[in-house]
Amino acid sequence: MTATASALLAVDAGGSNTRAVLVDSTGACLGYGVSTSGNPTAVGVDEALSAIGTAAGHALAQAGVGPDDVGRVVLAAAGEQGLLGDAAVRVAIGAPALTVDRVIDILAMYHSAAVEPDGVALVAGTGAIAARFSHLETQRVIDGTGWLLGDRGSGFWIGRKVARAVAADLDGTGPRTALTGLVLADLGLADTGLGPDGRPAVLESFISHAYSDKPVRLARLAPYAFRAAAGEDETAGAIVAEAESALARTLLLARDGHDELPVVLGGSVIAQGILGEGRRPSAPLADALDGADVRWVHEGAAGAAVVGLVREGVDVTAAMLQGLLDGIESSRKA
Amino acid sequence: MTATASALLAVDAGGSNTRAVLVDSTGACLGYGVSTSGNPTAVGVDEALSAIGTAAGHALAQAGVGPDDVGRVVLAAAGEQGLLGDAAVRVAIGAPALTVDRVIDILAMYHSAAVEPDGVALVAGTGAIAARFSHLETQRVIDGTGWLLGDRGSGFWIGRKVARAVAADLDGTGPRTALTGLVLADLGLADTGLGPDGRPAVLESFISHAYSDKPVRLARLAPYAFRAAAGEDETAGAIVAEAESALARTLLLARDGHDELPVVLGGSVIAQGILGEGRRPSAPLADALDGADVRWVHEGAAGAAVVGLVREGVDVTAAMLQGLLDGIESSRKA
Repeated sequence: MTATASALLAVDAGGSNTRAVLVDSTGACLGYGVSTSGNPTAVGVDEALSAIGTAAGHALAQAGVGPDDVGRVVLAAAGEQGLLGDAAVRVAIGAPALTVDRVIDILAMYHSAAVEPDGVALVAGTGAIAARFSHLETQRVIDGTGWLLGDRGSGFWIGRKVARAVAADLDGTGPRTALTGLVLADLGLADTGLGPDGRPAVLESFISHAYSDKPVRLARLAPYAFRAAAGEDETAGAIVAEAESALARTLLLARDGHDELPVVLGGSVIAQGILGEGRRPSAPLADALDGADVRWVHEGAAGAAVVGLVREGVDVTAAMLQGLLDGIESSRKA
Repeated sequence: MTATASALLAVDAGGSNTRAVLVDSTGACLGYGVSTSGNPTAVGVDEALSAIGTAAGHALAQAGVGPDDVGRVVLAAAGEQGLLGDAAVRVAIGAPALTVDRVIDILAMYHSAAVEPDGVALVAGTGAIAARFSHLETQRVIDGTGWLLGDRGSGFWIGRKVARAVAADLDGTGPRTALTGLVLADLGLADTGLGPDGRPAVLESFISHAYSDKPVRLARLAPYAFRAAAGEDETAGAIVAEAESALARTLLLARDGHDELPVVLGGSVIAQGILGEGRRPSAPLADALDGADVRWVHEGAAGAAVVGLVREGVDVTAAMLQGLLDGIESSRKA
């Protein structure tokens, strides 16, 4: 397949990995590529740029074209957008003359599952944010204020509560919880009896471990909350219920009574936690989603392409989006 | 006044500032000095060592002696003790041949107000910890697990809740609170109307500000919780009440039924918040302190000296401790 210089390269630089898709003006997938995290806040600017370059390189190689055949780049990035300058992104992709358009990552997520110009998205991965859009414009944003100030119900938010529950269990200040065994095993820490201060010696190792990494990395403990909650652990069950309440509230505030709009859900906490393994959301979140036109999305590359095409004046239909998603699926397997 | 080589230099390297006191074998204060933060976790190793050197230098200068006249150093340090190596501390003080004994900071706080070998201390400054001691040995430690894992009721814990309440107020996801005006004024941020995403533009500035510094620095917002709570702000009142409950719980768990023991309270949250400006602790903390032999302490230099003397076999009496505290008070005014 050959691209023309009108081909559009859409990149979704996410916290877990980076996806790039090359599309033509009909929205057909010419090539697709995946690499590691492209979130400059999480992994640093150099690593993020390298991930963007790698994913883009894979997409171009699959399409059998070079950077010169790309007409335009649309970049959706997690973390601090300002860290990834246009010039550096051009160098990473190997196309110094390209225009780099930006799209906020939650809008890219929304349009990965919806072509309707009006709708709502809730994304809960490492962070948590909801927004309502109309014709590519943001009408309302709720939360997304980061791990220190908000992101209620996010992977970090849950992971921090898991870590604190484990510390409190070991310290004797909180209830016993199945989370402790799961997390200590994950970290390779063994209980070795009491330390000199009358507390389990493993508490000291756990503390050292928790402070040796970036705080936001506590998000990796979030899956244990869902696993222990499934096993009827009370502490974990309370954390998951509180997360669901928080996400329901974030969604409702962003939707702001526009209950007829499609709702796109995305992010690892949604996909692997709240809706994972046959699980169903409980009360406040289930109520918020009841009767709504709900769709799930795994990544934002397709939506970044949709935004790029709409900005070029293309009337992107639901059939075109489905074709693009099918093309990505085929490319992924190729 | 002249010191002999038996003089003991006690240093309390705290999060807010560092205090050093030079005492003779009778516990008399020969000299006293204060400098900036000596917590290596908070300000870095070089700055902490420099603060220790400065405080020690002031104490020696006031006593009219040099480092060679010091027989022994006792160091109580906040933060990660391992960061301040013996050799580096010796160089900072200018006495390469000295022995550097360590004492955990909360034990130094305890013995700044008590000579009884058995007792309890609760310290709530940037962090929060309680412990029960017997003859310089720690019997039980509760919390003190740091800002990410615990420190319930601490300055960081309160400051983080203040910051989150302000973000939620600006985001429209939480109640209006007087904290918002107080904190934005403190940071020099002005409300400049709505931003492009439909939220107050100042929210973006507040977010940038919060993430531009070390997370633990949010502890500086804690005083606003007490100020707004005094003005009947509901959000602030709830934060303060929750902090008091958490500290009461930490204290009770460390005391573990030994209600006859003296209770030493210290740290900025206690001194300037919970017991500040004629304020009295409310229900759960008031109950925990009711009938107990409660004492307040501002710093740990005197207690570090007491620990050093006891370890040398000196029988430190209440009168000796009072003399040392009076001596420090006089030196401070000198």
